[in-house]
Amino acid sequence: MEIHQNLNFVIEILGTISFAMSGSFAAMQKRLDPFGVLIIAFVTSVGGGTVRDLLLDVPVFWMHDMIMCSVIFITCLFSMVFKSIEKKFRVTLFLFDSFGLGLFTIVGIQKGLNADLHPLICLTLGTITGCFGGIIRDILLNRIPLILRKEIYATACILGGGVFLILVKLTGLSYTFVQISTILLIVAIRTFAVKYHWQMPKFYGAEQNSEM
Amino acid sequence: MEIHQNLNFVIEILGTISFAMSGSFAAMQKRLDPFGVLIIAFVTSVGGGTVRDLLLDVPVFWMHDMIMCSVIFITCLFSMVFKSIEKKFRVTLFLFDSFGLGLFTIVGIQKGLNADLHPLICLTLGTITGCFGGIIRDILLNRIPLILRKEIYATACILGGGVFLILVKLTGLSYTFVQISTILLIVAIRTFAVKYHWQMPKFYGAEQNSEM
Amino acid sequence: MEIHQNLNFVIEILGTISFAMSGSFAAMQKRLDPFGVLIIAFVTSVGGGTVRDLLLDVPVFWMHDMIMCSVIFITCLFSMVFKSIEKKFRVTLFLFDSFGLGLFTIVGIQKGLNADLHPLICLTLGTITGCFGGIIRDILLNRIPLILRKEIYATACILGGGVFLILVKLTGLSYTFVQISTILLIVAIRTFAVKYHWQMPKFYGAEQNSEM
Repeated sequence: MEIHQNLNFVIEILGTISFAMSGSFAAMQKRLDPFGVLIIAFVTSVGGGTVRDLLLDVPVFWMHDMIMCSVIFITCLFSMVFKSIEKKFRVTLFLFDSFGLGLFTIVGIQKGLNADLHPLICLTLGTITGCFGGIIRDILLNRIPLILRKEIYATACILGGGVFLILVKLTGLSYTFVQISTILLIVAIRTFAVKYHWQMPKFYGAEQNSEM
Repeated sequence: MEIHQNLNFVIEILGTISFAMSGSFAAMQKRLDPFGVLIIAFVTSVGGGTVRDLLLDVPVFWMHDMIMCSVIFITCLFSMVFKSIEKKFRVTLFLFDSFGLGLFTIVGIQKGLNADLHPLICLTLGTITGCFGGIIRDILLNRIPLILRKEIYATACILGGGVFLILVKLTGLSYTFVQISTILLIVAIRTFAVKYHWQMPKFYGAEQNSEM
Repeated sequence: MEIHQNLNFVIEILGTISFAMSGSFAAMQKRLDPFGVLIIAFVTSVGGGTVRDLLLDVPVFWMHDMIMCSVIFITCLFSMVFKSIEKKFRVTLFLFDSFGLGLFTIVGIQKGLNADLHPLICLTLGTITGCFGGIIRDILLNRIPLILRKEIYATACILGGGVFLILVKLTGLSYTFVQISTILLIVAIRTFAVKYHWQMPKFYGAEQNSEM
């Protein structure tokens, strides 16, 4: 159980760093001042988990945890100083963001399972934990909302999270193995989707993009 | 009391179906993939009630209730398969959305009254329950925000909810009768407002639409 | 302690009036009907404090407090009737909004300190209390988001709040004196920033404003 705990901790830290970086770079692109960048980095990192904890009515994870706040602060500072890494390491950053998505989705599902909720509710919590940070970031920065972009994003969450739940509930595989492999699955789905321009089929015909 | 309970249950289910449908069609118009449509349908249906339950600090209604989630899922699937119904039944869908508004407004006020809150706070909770799902939907989909459209929407909530509170508090009329008639009143206000292009008077002069 | 309590109460009322006015005028500029103006005034006033109370898991402050709701209602009515004051008293209104920011920031930090949280978490809560009302207002009204405007806004919160925490924790100065002087500091930072077009330095180079 000790290893398990430590692994979860490492997963949360890595997800936090990934999203803090993604938030920082998005905010710097919009030319925000340093405190603005910090706020966006913070919201992107903790947004999904905060909504999840409010829904579960458990203490919000970052309120009593200076480690998370420090990690976000240091990541944000690092991103501002080494601004140029964004262009040189665009692929690395994309992978970071995808890892954040995978890590947080699984963390969200686990918190739901711990609260003895129905697997589909857990999957919903996982999707919220993975996606809401990025959604709030885009709303605050006036960017094209995450959910409207032609990327497999929420879909990777839901598919990977579904596989995680099936493996945990129906097979005897080691929990740690299932955890790591489904995180990699989410990263893989998203990476291949972007590389090969996958799009989910739409079962409904073409439509003008007008307001209702 | 038995009939009363059942009626409330039917009201919540109908409201959920109405809003899930309204969310699904809005998402399909924006060409989202099926999981994106599901997320928007979910958020539109449960958004208002979720904010209300968080404010009341009671368990969020859909977290332990698979019926709501199943209803949303089936409605969403149905909407995707029978995409064409939107054009044929535009009026029906408008009525559905108006019924959702009326149903959820009254449910929100009732939850406030059950928590022994002041009638004006209950009215606020009713307005939040009725309107916030649609507000979040529009924000996520980058549509013109609900509150800016030239429709009597929030106003129908507030007027209908006000009448409900007056009738419940000050008259001896049967609760079920008051409930049903104020829901119909909200639907009627909204329908006539759209049909006859009603607009609330604005007591203040014309103003340029500039940013402050 | 009696004076202290009363001062806090006065501070909250003044902040509420300031933000209700700022919300009302923003909504009237967008030509909302009176109920729409009321909703925006309400959300601008209570938005930040609501998010803070949800995060702290304490009862949401306006749910059992008819005074706040009445104050917002009267302020909103007053703003609609005396619409013309906006142009004549543009500077007064700017000062009101800055006072609201300062007042709410300090209230938020105090609530965090009362809950025995780490000073940096308290500073975060102060920033949320000060800024989130305006952020939600801008999202609902489809205005340029607060955080993207070239104003020292969040920065004034964070700097002023930081000074407040340092003075409270590290000096023996009277609490009331620290409270009032840091509120004035936040107002001063924002006022001078707008007057002299201060901008925070950006440590990172110019960047095209493209979407990622």
